[in-house]
Amino acid sequence: MPNPTAAMLVIGDEILSGRTRDANMYHLANELTGIGIDLKEVRVVSDDAPAIIAAVQALSAGYDSVFTSGGIGPTHDDITADCIAAAFNDTIDVRDDARALLQAHYDRDGKDFNEARQRMARIPASATLIDNPVSVAPGFRVQNVHVMAGVPSVFRAMVASVLPTLTGGAPLISENLRIDRGEGDIAGPLGAVDAKYPELSIGSYPFQQENGQYGANIVIRGTDLDMINAALADLRAAFPA
Amino acid sequence: MPNPTAAMLVIGDEILSGRTRDANMYHLANELTGIGIDLKEVRVVSDDAPAIIAAVQALSAGYDSVFTSGGIGPTHDDITADCIAAAFNDTIDVRDDARALLQAHYDRDGKDFNEARQRMARIPASATLIDNPVSVAPGFRVQNVHVMAGVPSVFRAMVASVLPTLTGGAPLISENLRIDRGEGDIAGPLGAVDAKYPELSIGSYPFQQENGQYGANIVIRGTDLDMINAALADLRAAFPA
Repeated sequence: MPNPTAAMLVIGDEILSGRTRDANMYHLANELTGIGIDLKEVRVVSDDAPAIIAAVQALSAGYDSVFTSGGIGPTHDDITADCIAAAFNDTIDVRDDARALLQAHYDRDGKDFNEARQRMARIPASATLIDNPVSVAPGFRVQNVHVMAGVPSVFRAMVASVLPTLTGGAPLISENLRIDRGEGDIAGPLGAVDAKYPELSIGSYPFQQENGQYGANIVIRGTDLDMINAALADLRAAFPA
Repeated sequence: MPNPTAAMLVIGDEILSGRTRDANMYHLANELTGIGIDLKEVRVVSDDAPAIIAAVQALSAGYDSVFTSGGIGPTHDDITADCIAAAFNDTIDVRDDARALLQAHYDRDGKDFNEARQRMARIPASATLIDNPVSVAPGFRVQNVHVMAGVPSVFRAMVASVLPTLTGGAPLISENLRIDRGEGDIAGPLGAVDAKYPELSIGSYPFQQENGQYGANIVIRGTDLDMINAALADLRAAFPA
């Protein structure tokens, strides 16, 4: 049986403007791979309601589960929660359960639970809350879409809250073989090994060293360790060190 | 007049499997921002022909220009060129101009211009070649889609070849103000400043410091420096250091 599939939607201008290097995509990709869920697509869109709504609808329909990051804070450019409600024809308002969490948090810290902070309790009516042990303001899930914060420490905490609720597939095993030759020398024998093991996914990731020399990391992925080792042995025989 | 828009398509399993941290997205975003082209969307898809073709068609129709990275090498998992041809109903074969470039390169290096390497001369019939001063194998453009390599040093060289051919918009100016308070305290006054300057784009990028304290970088973007400075002065007055 094929593994469950997933997509990620990164919301906000940080990456599109070149201001920030991605961190959340890298984290989620590793976590999902670890539990046998295949991340098949990532989209990055700006803080633009029609773009967010269209992406949520397309990804929700196309994959078993979807994970979003960004746009659920208290500022004017945080529009993700309203877009999720719109994408699923759901209503949205400040919800009592989320408000109670936040009220207790700000009371404890002696901070004003002002109008901006109350925006973080705006949650679609049909949503289930996602626990945020770092900064309390919850994420939420509507149908197969998990809505999480963009701040990396909070995103990671929410992913940790969500992972135990997901049903993974067979854990993917991967082995790596570095070959210090150009891909043009590697491609022929590599293609033959790839054709011999159709159950495995064999990828070639070329690199250029500081001295200008080319090489490639050959990554063999699959769920059957014996088969992976057999393919690895074939590759080692084709490319003696 | 609004700036020209762009999208990027990252092709390959490296990022989706969590193997590699993105570098090309970050580079392209900065280069486009610098010449006044607004990067509006990024998609990452795996080495899967239907997924690549659908994404190319959607992005080509939706934005002024599209930039792809990855999948144009000599190995079996390099299927981008064929997918681009399919996306535009174009034919594809080894092309004389690309073959001549590569033949001369491998003759010079005394390397075999084997069948795998000849795959890198497979270029759609309607394409214009993109110069690759790093490793010779060319990228290419079909209509508004620029097809480039995934190896970061080669990707950067191809972007440098392409940039002078693009028509940018008004160069975007951005100013940054760091405020060491939680977004919940920032949001009210920030929203007022945002409403006062509808021509500017004002974003709040929250962070958490190592000591647990929250803050945010407020980024003001626009094309009118005087207006940006006025908004900055309003923000400084609202949040004295």
